[in-house]
Amino acid sequence: MTESAIDILLVDDNSSDAELTMYALRKANFGNKLKLVRDGAEALDFLFGEGIYARPDHRSTVPKVVLLDLKLPKIDGTEVLRRIKSDPRTRNIPVVVLTSSDEEGDVGHAYELGANSYIVKPVDFKQLSENIAQVGFYWLQLNHSPKSR
Amino acid sequence: MTESAIDILLVDDNSSDAELTMYALRKANFGNKLKLVRDGAEALDFLFGEGIYARPDHRSTVPKVVLLDLKLPKIDGTEVLRRIKSDPRTRNIPVVVLTSSDEEGDVGHAYELGANSYIVKPVDFKQLSENIAQVGFYWLQLNHSPKSR
Repeated sequence: MTESAIDILLVDDNSSDAELTMYALRKANFGNKLKLVRDGAEALDFLFGEGIYARPDHRSTVPKVVLLDLKLPKIDGTEVLRRIKSDPRTRNIPVVVLTSSDEEGDVGHAYELGANSYIVKPVDFKQLSENIAQVGFYWLQLNHSPKSR
Repeated sequence: MTESAIDILLVDDNSSDAELTMYALRKANFGNKLKLVRDGAEALDFLFGEGIYARPDHRSTVPKVVLLDLKLPKIDGTEVLRRIKSDPRTRNIPVVVLTSSDEEGDVGHAYELGANSYIVKPVDFKQLSENIAQVGFYWLQLNHSPKSR
């Protein structure tokens, strides 16, 4: 897999959450072109081709969707969202907030910053797995994402 | 049904398209709280409580999702999208463009204006019906929309 062929950028620092999400996506055949990053700084480096991703072969790696946890180390998910949506290079990339918080303030703030969708992860394992598969189906099969820069 | 309890605002001037969309949503149990408007001016009046919707009982009618065709009479869908996304009263409402155009320029422009998602309607009746049901499921069951103003 070259990194120029990414469908999903998953940003999650919680190992068990990330593993379950990847398991559910792969089981539904939506996980083949997935890149996992574990903090907000790496997410931004990946999207902007900076830091360890400042390589000629990284090119314009535009995922079809970013699945973004809000609680992240180094740079918080909210700030990652703000930077993606305020930069013309990345603002059109669909960003789905995938979080355990259903607090109204968090929901409203995420939309205010330009989140395309806000999904609350259910506690139940089976339900979570099904929901993740639906999210993958919607953004990879149904939705049309903008083409690469 | 009072208009303060709307889940979906469907904006489509094509009668057969609108009927099929409503049929597919109702069949999947997502069409009970649906409001259909047939041009861009009425869509904006509905969302901003103006014109024929300037009534005390209209109150803050915030749908969970707007399904928006791009080709509309009176005010074009692109302009409707621009106004929704540039007004603080409505910018957080999820807007799904539902169109027959898969031209890259239209897709990119819609995201540029703040569309949350872009769905191309397939020509096949059965496929379209299934896709519409999936769109309803995603935005009414999975997604968390922001609460009313």
